[in-house]
Amino acid sequence: MNFTLSEAIEILERTPKTLGALLSGLSSEWLICNEGEGTWNAVEVVDHLIDGEEKNWIPRMNFILQEGEGKPFLPFDRYAHLNGKKEISLEEKLEVFKTVRIKNLATLKGINELETHLEKKGLHPAFGSVKVRELMSTWAVHDLTHISQISRVLANRYRTDVGPWIEYLGILKK
Amino acid sequence: MNFTLSEAIEILERTPKTLGALLSGLSSEWLICNEGEGTWNAVEVVDHLIDGEEKNWIPRMNFILQEGEGKPFLPFDRYAHLNGKKEISLEEKLEVFKTVRIKNLATLKGINELETHLEKKGLHPAFGSVKVRELMSTWAVHDLTHISQISRVLANRYRTDVGPWIEYLGILKK
Repeated sequence: MNFTLSEAIEILERTPKTLGALLSGLSSEWLICNEGEGTWNAVEVVDHLIDGEEKNWIPRMNFILQEGEGKPFLPFDRYAHLNGKKEISLEEKLEVFKTVRIKNLATLKGINELETHLEKKGLHPAFGSVKVRELMSTWAVHDLTHISQISRVLANRYRTDVGPWIEYLGILKK
Repeated sequence: MNFTLSEAIEILERTPKTLGALLSGLSSEWLICNEGEGTWNAVEVVDHLIDGEEKNWIPRMNFILQEGEGKPFLPFDRYAHLNGKKEISLEEKLEVFKTVRIKNLATLKGINELETHLEKKGLHPAFGSVKVRELMSTWAVHDLTHISQISRVLANRYRTDVGPWIEYLGILKK
């Protein structure tokens, strides 16, 4: 086990800036490309991350702290962001993500003696018993998953353009 | 085919800032973790990117523009960065990478009528005939590959910490 709260927060704090550096100002051709039908483009991933801030991580943690394993927390719809919220620009979405993330990390840091609750258990609707520590670890890994995904989606746009070099580019072989 | 020079440059320009946002100031535990023996940690990936700026992309492009398919360009040692250059900090390495990247993009933009040379061919030591356009596409995709790799390497550190959520985190299943 490697998790510590302060190190997980290091990852969580960096994601909005990382996504801003990677995506802000990119041509729309980069932003709308995906990996084929049913896959997400970079903007949809940002939508999904905003959704998680609003409905998943902190709400679930509060639920566990209040309810324990008494009742399962609500399922998180991983596709909800594909409906609605389309009208604002990527730049505005990056700003929304940054703002809700800062707010959620402030909430996290404000929880009284959170360190002592890390082994507290809640009831996941699919997995059953889960710990606060596992939820926090997953929040950080989830960020990294989606940074990796966005990089892969962008790279995929040049799949045929790289010619024979595809041989050395494992990212394009998936 | 999707490559345009200006859009590839958009990616290349963003990478130093993206890596700075993701890595700068992280605890050493994040920076030294890798995926097991023979794999790279985040700092070694930055070393490799610096190496590519110094010995791969622009030198090869100049070689193609001068020599055409007359003789093959030298192989690029993808493991050379594992020797030497260890003494400076990550922060200094990020700064070195930013500086050489800016310099190389200035060189690229300074090439007279580069757009007219994109279909020009050179001789890769392993692949044979390759085009300037393919080299430039690969440069951009190579950046994205390594951003994705670093995210995966960091995520892997919490492989067991996420508990049952590993089920939803494809990045940890590779």
